[in-house]
Amino acid sequence: MSAHRIASIPGDGIGREVTPAVYEVLEAVGGRHGLEFAYTEFDWSCERYLREGAMMPEDGVDRLRGFDAVFLGAVGAPGVPDHISLWGLLIPIRRAFRQYVNLRPIRVFEGIDSPLRAARAGEIDFVVVRENVEGEYSEIGGRLNRGFPEEMAVQEAVFTRAGVTRVLDYAFALAGRRGGHLTSATKSNGIVHTLPFWDELVRERAESHPGVRWDQEHIDALCAKLVLDPARFDVIVGSNLFGDILSDLGAAVAGSIGIAPSANLNPEREHPSMFEPVHGSAPDIAGRGIANPMGAIWSAALMLDHLGHPEASAEVTGAMAAVLAETDTRTADLGGSATTAEFTGELVRRLGR
Amino acid sequence: MSAHRIASIPGDGIGREVTPAVYEVLEAVGGRHGLEFAYTEFDWSCERYLREGAMMPEDGVDRLRGFDAVFLGAVGAPGVPDHISLWGLLIPIRRAFRQYVNLRPIRVFEGIDSPLRAARAGEIDFVVVRENVEGEYSEIGGRLNRGFPEEMAVQEAVFTRAGVTRVLDYAFALAGRRGGHLTSATKSNGIVHTLPFWDELVRERAESHPGVRWDQEHIDALCAKLVLDPARFDVIVGSNLFGDILSDLGAAVAGSIGIAPSANLNPEREHPSMFEPVHGSAPDIAGRGIANPMGAIWSAALMLDHLGHPEASAEVTGAMAAVLAETDTRTADLGGSATTAEFTGELVRRLGR
Ligand SMILES: CC(C)[C@H](C(=O)O)[C@@H](O)C(=O)O
Ligand SMILES: CC(C)[C@H](C(=O)O)[C@@H](O)C(=O)O
Repeated sequence: MSAHRIASIPGDGIGREVTPAVYEVLEAVGGRHGLEFAYTEFDWSCERYLREGAMMPEDGVDRLRGFDAVFLGAVGAPGVPDHISLWGLLIPIRRAFRQYVNLRPIRVFEGIDSPLRAARAGEIDFVVVRENVEGEYSEIGGRLNRGFPEEMAVQEAVFTRAGVTRVLDYAFALAGRRGGHLTSATKSNGIVHTLPFWDELVRERAESHPGVRWDQEHIDALCAKLVLDPARFDVIVGSNLFGDILSDLGAAVAGSIGIAPSANLNPEREHPSMFEPVHGSAPDIAGRGIANPMGAIWSAALMLDHLGHPEASAEVTGAMAAVLAETDTRTADLGGSATTAEFTGELVRRLGR
Repeated sequence: MSAHRIASIPGDGIGREVTPAVYEVLEAVGGRHGLEFAYTEFDWSCERYLREGAMMPEDGVDRLRGFDAVFLGAVGAPGVPDHISLWGLLIPIRRAFRQYVNLRPIRVFEGIDSPLRAARAGEIDFVVVRENVEGEYSEIGGRLNRGFPEEMAVQEAVFTRAGVTRVLDYAFALAGRRGGHLTSATKSNGIVHTLPFWDELVRERAESHPGVRWDQEHIDALCAKLVLDPARFDVIVGSNLFGDILSDLGAAVAGSIGIAPSANLNPEREHPSMFEPVHGSAPDIAGRGIANPMGAIWSAALMLDHLGHPEASAEVTGAMAAVLAETDTRTADLGGSATTAEFTGELVRRLGR
């Protein structure tokens, strides 16, 4: 039996508190399935930046290359600007490893109060597939006439046929394995160059996936429908920016950002994929041991699935659902008083059975 | 007593059903305040496009120039692409008349079920100030290598110092007249040229409005907070795209897109401003007399305010609130069975008192 080699980057703040929870859960579920995990920890973080002047070493990306997967807790610290903390670590990894799919499942669990009156557990269960390496998050652009009245900034969104096609194909295939329904997020009525191109490619790819029903919604109306009628969605595919917005909104609809997981996938497995909770480093609650570990644990379940262990993955999400449905154990963000360790312990106990 | 000269463009679908409701309401409230309105109706619409090949005549914008305000019902019809229906009418008017503020109030009225469990009427009452002539909705961009594997589309978002400053100043001043709290929508952690510039200008303009407390939120987190804690907001300012998303999401939080009004303002009054409900032409329910006229009527209230009649404006929104709080009269989108005419009649009766 060989161990999966995991590069672990706990990062900053509560990232360091939820990462140990992940180790514990993987050990428990691994034990039942004959799986082993060998972690190599990297101290890449804002703390490292403040100490050494960089979030990660210059050859950071190369050091991750040989691993089976990367687990990231969270990065960010007060006083460290985003162009350092994100563009010095998270975003370069996503891009270097062609993690062009950012997968973000949304589910309303029994036992969690969604802020939506009509949310019924089990009915709201969809996945956002976000394009993760191009689109609106582009380095192309700049500033002219700095400081003068005629100053301006421009930024170019870039959508390539190859980049859009591959994420659409992933989303269509995923919809085919789930409920058979794909919704494309667009705004081609207002953004008249890139998004009509996106729409065209959706129509084109749909022909290769005849078993999937698809529709499209403008992002403004789609956000409204996520609140008015979330049960109608199965898989939603969107650009880098739209996918980001929809998945945070979806996490809110599901009750807490603390729950939401994400997988940055290189579906071809030519490079390692990266798994990280959607929440940030939450400096306001860091160090108190009260962070919700669900986002991290669910991300680890996505990692298990990606590593070829769908049953172990389903046991982890099943145990999460069971704790919420059968006990009062939940963290403060969900109105409870459990610590990170208590919630994790309760979950691990269920995995043992 | 001189009459206000209003250019009225009922447009398509339910636009033609809600516009007469506006006339009725303005006549009722005008009668009490000695106000008269002289309407000139324009048949500009998708119907006109299908008949004559253009949404409006070539000199359309010029024909509107002399009016005190423009009222627009809704445009759009099945089979007429957006680049015709929107870019042939709505968007050129916004731009030609420098309507750089798109004002979109959001309120949870007593008697309306917000989809949010925690929404309490009166507590959720905020305004989205949307930049309305530049930003992400730019004509700059295009397509290369059409039909080939290396095909791509680019689109440039353009933020000018002048364009951002004037909408921020409007938003800060509005916040000063309301609750004294402004939230700026950004995404400068991912979109690294235009939005850091936006953030800088917010900080710069804040110095001229020391009485206003301000903060900023990334658009993903902001959408989540609109669902998790909408009562915290007073005025939210955002770019063309972000303002569009936030105002539709806000309308959903308030219970129905059918309620939401908008004012496309040229604050300097050098050109006419334009007032339109946020909802579209709704071809699915058009012709049945069941459209919710509230979005249109509330837009007319914003028009009254802009024309210098704040008391008449407040009477209209007050009557709207009273119908909802005191009666069961509401249209189908709000779970009722009233027709457009019945709701309007009930509202007009209250205006008479
Ligand atoms: C129809 C569309 C172009 C328009 C916009 O996004 O501006 C609409 O959504 C609106 O909000 O007025
Ligand atoms: C931190 C930020 C750049 C990032 C993003 O927008 O990609 C985050 O919001 C996320 O969703 O992973």
